[in-house]
Amino acid sequence: MFDHLFTTDRMRAILSDSARIQGMLDFEAALARAEARAGMMSEEIAETIAAHCHADRFAVAPLAEATVTAGNPAIPLIAALTERVAADDAEAARYVHWGATSQDAMDTGLVLQLRDALDALEADLTRLADACARLAERTANLTMAGRTWLQQALPITFGVKAAGWLSAVNRHRERLRQMRPRVLTVQLGGAVGTLAAFGSNGLVVAEALADDLGLALPDVPWHAHRDRLVEVATTLGALVGTLGKMARDISLLAQTEVGEAFEPAEPGKGASSTMPQKRNPVGAAVALAAAVRVPGLVATMLAAMPQEHERGLGGWQAEWETLPEIVRLAAGALWQMAEVAEGLELDAARMRANLDITKGVICAEAVAMALVPMLGKTTAHQVVEDACRQALARDVTLRAALVDIPQVTEILSADTLDRLCDPRNATGLADQLIQRALARRVE
Amino acid sequence: MFDHLFTTDRMRAILSDSARIQGMLDFEAALARAEARAGMMSEEIAETIAAHCHADRFAVAPLAEATVTAGNPAIPLIAALTERVAADDAEAARYVHWGATSQDAMDTGLVLQLRDALDALEADLTRLADACARLAERTANLTMAGRTWLQQALPITFGVKAAGWLSAVNRHRERLRQMRPRVLTVQLGGAVGTLAAFGSNGLVVAEALADDLGLALPDVPWHAHRDRLVEVATTLGALVGTLGKMARDISLLAQTEVGEAFEPAEPGKGASSTMPQKRNPVGAAVALAAAVRVPGLVATMLAAMPQEHERGLGGWQAEWETLPEIVRLAAGALWQMAEVAEGLELDAARMRANLDITKGVICAEAVAMALVPMLGKTTAHQVVEDACRQALARDVTLRAALVDIPQVTEILSADTLDRLCDPRNATGLADQLIQRALARRVE
Amino acid sequence: MFDHLFTTDRMRAILSDSARIQGMLDFEAALARAEARAGMMSEEIAETIAAHCHADRFAVAPLAEATVTAGNPAIPLIAALTERVAADDAEAARYVHWGATSQDAMDTGLVLQLRDALDALEADLTRLADACARLAERTANLTMAGRTWLQQALPITFGVKAAGWLSAVNRHRERLRQMRPRVLTVQLGGAVGTLAAFGSNGLVVAEALADDLGLALPDVPWHAHRDRLVEVATTLGALVGTLGKMARDISLLAQTEVGEAFEPAEPGKGASSTMPQKRNPVGAAVALAAAVRVPGLVATMLAAMPQEHERGLGGWQAEWETLPEIVRLAAGALWQMAEVAEGLELDAARMRANLDITKGVICAEAVAMALVPMLGKTTAHQVVEDACRQALARDVTLRAALVDIPQVTEILSADTLDRLCDPRNATGLADQLIQRALARRVE
Amino acid sequence: MFDHLFTTDRMRAILSDSARIQGMLDFEAALARAEARAGMMSEEIAETIAAHCHADRFAVAPLAEATVTAGNPAIPLIAALTERVAADDAEAARYVHWGATSQDAMDTGLVLQLRDALDALEADLTRLADACARLAERTANLTMAGRTWLQQALPITFGVKAAGWLSAVNRHRERLRQMRPRVLTVQLGGAVGTLAAFGSNGLVVAEALADDLGLALPDVPWHAHRDRLVEVATTLGALVGTLGKMARDISLLAQTEVGEAFEPAEPGKGASSTMPQKRNPVGAAVALAAAVRVPGLVATMLAAMPQEHERGLGGWQAEWETLPEIVRLAAGALWQMAEVAEGLELDAARMRANLDITKGVICAEAVAMALVPMLGKTTAHQVVEDACRQALARDVTLRAALVDIPQVTEILSADTLDRLCDPRNATGLADQLIQRALARRVE
Repeated sequence: MFDHLFTTDRMRAILSDSARIQGMLDFEAALARAEARAGMMSEEIAETIAAHCHADRFAVAPLAEATVTAGNPAIPLIAALTERVAADDAEAARYVHWGATSQDAMDTGLVLQLRDALDALEADLTRLADACARLAERTANLTMAGRTWLQQALPITFGVKAAGWLSAVNRHRERLRQMRPRVLTVQLGGAVGTLAAFGSNGLVVAEALADDLGLALPDVPWHAHRDRLVEVATTLGALVGTLGKMARDISLLAQTEVGEAFEPAEPGKGASSTMPQKRNPVGAAVALAAAVRVPGLVATMLAAMPQEHERGLGGWQAEWETLPEIVRLAAGALWQMAEVAEGLELDAARMRANLDITKGVICAEAVAMALVPMLGKTTAHQVVEDACRQALARDVTLRAALVDIPQVTEILSADTLDRLCDPRNATGLADQLIQRALARRVE
Repeated sequence: MFDHLFTTDRMRAILSDSARIQGMLDFEAALARAEARAGMMSEEIAETIAAHCHADRFAVAPLAEATVTAGNPAIPLIAALTERVAADDAEAARYVHWGATSQDAMDTGLVLQLRDALDALEADLTRLADACARLAERTANLTMAGRTWLQQALPITFGVKAAGWLSAVNRHRERLRQMRPRVLTVQLGGAVGTLAAFGSNGLVVAEALADDLGLALPDVPWHAHRDRLVEVATTLGALVGTLGKMARDISLLAQTEVGEAFEPAEPGKGASSTMPQKRNPVGAAVALAAAVRVPGLVATMLAAMPQEHERGLGGWQAEWETLPEIVRLAAGALWQMAEVAEGLELDAARMRANLDITKGVICAEAVAMALVPMLGKTTAHQVVEDACRQALARDVTLRAALVDIPQVTEILSADTLDRLCDPRNATGLADQLIQRALARRVE
Repeated sequence: MFDHLFTTDRMRAILSDSARIQGMLDFEAALARAEARAGMMSEEIAETIAAHCHADRFAVAPLAEATVTAGNPAIPLIAALTERVAADDAEAARYVHWGATSQDAMDTGLVLQLRDALDALEADLTRLADACARLAERTANLTMAGRTWLQQALPITFGVKAAGWLSAVNRHRERLRQMRPRVLTVQLGGAVGTLAAFGSNGLVVAEALADDLGLALPDVPWHAHRDRLVEVATTLGALVGTLGKMARDISLLAQTEVGEAFEPAEPGKGASSTMPQKRNPVGAAVALAAAVRVPGLVATMLAAMPQEHERGLGGWQAEWETLPEIVRLAAGALWQMAEVAEGLELDAARMRANLDITKGVICAEAVAMALVPMLGKTTAHQVVEDACRQALARDVTLRAALVDIPQVTEILSADTLDRLCDPRNATGLADQLIQRALARRVE
Repeated sequence: MFDHLFTTDRMRAILSDSARIQGMLDFEAALARAEARAGMMSEEIAETIAAHCHADRFAVAPLAEATVTAGNPAIPLIAALTERVAADDAEAARYVHWGATSQDAMDTGLVLQLRDALDALEADLTRLADACARLAERTANLTMAGRTWLQQALPITFGVKAAGWLSAVNRHRERLRQMRPRVLTVQLGGAVGTLAAFGSNGLVVAEALADDLGLALPDVPWHAHRDRLVEVATTLGALVGTLGKMARDISLLAQTEVGEAFEPAEPGKGASSTMPQKRNPVGAAVALAAAVRVPGLVATMLAAMPQEHERGLGGWQAEWETLPEIVRLAAGALWQMAEVAEGLELDAARMRANLDITKGVICAEAVAMALVPMLGKTTAHQVVEDACRQALARDVTLRAALVDIPQVTEILSADTLDRLCDPRNATGLADQLIQRALARRVE
């Protein structure tokens, strides 16, 4: 029921039961071809087997039911495949799944799904990076309040906020690229990972299989070493954390009392059933929900790692639904944030008005810093703190309070005070930081 | 694809999309009737609305798609319901969902599902408790090795092991009972939980609604206070931990090298695709997988708690799939362990043979304890430790090593040594402990 | 370094290394006395042993170092105790720790610490409940914006918000009370939980021990069944979630742009090192940090549950620092929120001003509801939605927009519109809900 | 109390309060020098400040207490430093912490600690990899049972098991290397990350600071983007999972009933307080405990990521103890497994004896595979399954059962059967896989 809300159509297809079955069938077809290349069967037999390896010929429901008894879905799938091949050619049926173990099919099939998933995610990450870059460029001069501990602190620009998002997104792209060769790896080991059933052909078959599927050949099979899959989980986990941070920023900026940024409008989107005036930030909610959920799912993947001996009991099974769930949620959160970043609506007037709430007190640091060379840090801060308190007490601006303090006016001219008390002059090197973030290339 | 393996048919039905929709529709029907009772609409209108509140009339797919825009599934469901009622009676349509908010329908509907789920779980818990009790009674004299740190320590009986399981299961039953009144509570508050749209009728309607649905009326609505649902998560989380402990015990006992206990046999169950001799403990794998997965999901429910103001952003949405997932996994693990406990096969001969592996060293504590009164704890343990070392070095039994030590034979007669070195005499108060566990009643 | 920030002085003492040692020593002293009662040693010997059971006589550092080799701290502690008793009375030394296992001392000692911890927590929970109750009473008429999805929705009162906090706090108090008898339970089983070393005296000793320490006697020992301790973790976990919810509410209300509520002021508290005008909500930060951390720690306790056979390997050890950490963080978060609730500063003027931001649109639901009987739900909402849009577009109040709509003025008089557009009249049954929350008693 | 057990002395020093303080002081000293290089103060002043930046001059306790009010430890530390510098040179005191914010000091200080921690971890990882490599080489011909689902499956060699460990360890080394440049990055941004207080000097100072500390300069400050630190958490989390897998393997092999591998002996190590014959696998327990604990802590780091605006409230604080805890546990688990791998004791005779438990049934796959070319997969497996059943029923070896089956003897000669039924001939390509793992170089 929540599949459309929490993920994308593309990822729903990649992670569907049907795609899971196809992944295993792709393994079986490629295995037959690899074994034919190694001379273990004829090309004809391999093609006969491969011809049946299409997920749409296998109903999900009976496989799901048979999984209860078998303990994994590969066993009934291979049985069903063998049966179909046998109906065609009894001889060929003898060679189905030759020498492999269920987990070889399941793991390799999963890796094939993950390759598609990573392609989809990287495409949306590029979209998001581009959107953040455009935002950063476009809003380099859009001054707003910087906030720490949910309190206004000093002015920033929206551009430097977007540059921070961009920088983090680029790091995630780099991590995904570095991870690919470790993850996109074939699994072939047979019953206990020794390739025992292949005779001396084992590595020849394994190489041909890897080659056929476009995956790397690992040094040793990894049935009970799950760090490759865990790395997908943790890398996407961190990505979702960044998406959650963006969503939190945007949802806070969209508060009625802040009103500085809004998700792109769409008819009916985020409408309330009872409150006609509301527009709920649905994209941020989806990303934040993912950021709440994925940490626990990553913990599950990590907790499942100590798998027993040559194939685990419980740990392996714990991965089956968990890793796809992480991928699914990451895709949904990423898509939502890409949409939001592309269509983000900003309200410069509210940004300016919010900066005035503190009556210039937000520029207190700039004033204090200007006083430090003459008064020293401690005194300078004390003086400005007093001025702040007076401004708030008398309900005047900080500038008005400052001009009544001789210690200040002796040092700072009226013009200097004007300049120091204009938030637009207090955004530091925001501009240069934006340029640095934009200049960074992901290898 | 894994739904049959990881949960029960009954729980699949209770947690289905259709049941989720029915839960919301039950809320809408009961709300209409309650408002009729409060005089807010006629009985006829209420019945017209209620007549449409059947999940089988609403297709899941369009609701799921509309959820993307609406942000929750209640909004499109109520729109669809209103449309159908309107086709019947335009006047009645005006009263659908009168005064309530989406979350009122979603939360109350969920609570109704949870009531069914708790009923199903408690039934299987009773089955499991009964099976453990029978095991404990039946095997009160079945001596086996007690093991700590995966090392044989002292003898126990299988009965006292089963009594430990029983005792834990009974505590979980007690927790579930204490939890029910807190959880089985109606949600009705309207937009911000003040029942503002009901005029002065609010509490009258709320009471009638609770009464109609057989749920308790909470002191205040709980839209952003999720401890009720979290308690379901944590209580089932602890239950799954106990089930995982049972599964770990059984899977360790079922190891080829231990061979003391086995899951009930069933044709094809746990068969290996490549190794004809194997019987994989599928039930234990399911329970252990749940025990690996549920902690992370419970963490998600807890992490989702700090929900903002009167309705959260992200936290609430994070619950939607997580809590049902916990319930689903708990049901599957519980059912598997109930099946296993009911049909557990025990091998007394292997238990006895395993006790002999250590050549009586497993009785070392009993001998040491018998020596303490004369030699003191330190010396007694040292003497016995020496005897153990000699037994292992000379490949003889502990008894044989002991009779060569004058310090020992001066104190302990041959008969006493025989008795002390028979594991069956070293199971302490196992029997009384079993009786205590059996005597405990769950209120 | 962070101990003072993240917990209370009282809890630091309860959870100190010294208290952990004292807990084990209290077990040893009580065990000796219980065994004397059962005739296993003389009263004199028991008193000799008990006389040495004072933590201040045992240095922590050497025990901590010896733990590396022993694998747990009870073994070196008991060795040190035995040595000291021996220096006093060699005979008595033989009876130290008689018949018990390390885990008996560690678990019972921990339970004694938990009893103190629960007492401390319940005292602060009562403080917090009282503070929330006073807040709810005092602010029953203080109207403010209710917010959902971080958007202003309908008006509420601060009182009903505080009533929601109170209601949740009271549920946690109830859970803690129900949990106590399950948790405050002695551990005594000897090596494998069969009380084998006590001869027939086992249960007599166990009962006397439980009696001496004021703990309950469980039906069977629970060395490898950890649900009792897990229940402490999950119950406190849920409590921390509620504290995090309070902290989130308060920190959002304290935002510069909202300014409705503030933590009590204290010189220097939450001062910024660079921004003189800021007052950071330190109490909320501590509670929110706990709400971020505790879920993962609870997951650890749950994940540790499948402990092997009669004593686990890894799972048990995983609890040692984790459970105290949960207690420590819960105490700190609870204390901070009690302090904050007791001294919370509210700004009624800002609440009123914020309600005006939406130019009366926050009362849209009230108007729509008033129109429903004549226009039907769909039309009524459409009309009001149009009015809201116009109000925002023309920058006038909702009321001003409404009076230009004949469909509205035909139904609602000017007086009615005044009433409907006053947020103070739109807080529904907030008052009655507060009374319900205040009336609830925790048994 | 558990610090010695759960981590190393070296890591205790790196993560001590004193080292945390020194990290912040190193930042302050380097900042002063960088600002002097940029002409913001004289070299003399910078050296005066730097001269006071030694942790041993600052007591931890008062800083810890002052943290309660300040909300972070940098504020009181900088105050204390300023005071000390002032006592020396009032002028210089004005320049302490010039332009920086507390988080600049805390984050950079933490990164400096992490650099030391990564160095220490990589050294032990190299030790572990070397030990695994030696094990793999040394035991390339040591045949043992391969086990899946905790059941004996086919024979493997210990060498190929060690090669699997080695391969995983090498992947973790690669991940750590790729991570370093992202993590070892200076933090300098001032109040809201814009370097506002540095005038136009900001990036010059930042570069000089990075250069002085030997850290990289990030494109933008990362106060509220925590993916760098999260990557440390997740990367170590996955490493700990692998260590837990090794520990699980070893502890299962060390079971009394298996007896194939043992942790290195050390006087008193893992001794039981009541059972003289036991040797508890303490190293495995420490690693498994870490593998249970770290997933939850990693989840905390991920959950803390959505930090608000320019500095978070609650999320940042949640990291302070959590990340060091992960590092601490990883170091302890790694050290234990390095020790265990270096000194692992293996029992070839028990391995051989355990292979015989199944009476040759463990070679069933080899026989079945040999029959497939003539009988087809289905029939071949059926025939061998029957033989297995008969062997178990008649309590004879599989070979003895096979020679009574004409279908078998027609195809396989007595010599062939001998060869097929010798587990040493059924380890497949274990040897080549070992060579592949040994050949792999970590870049």
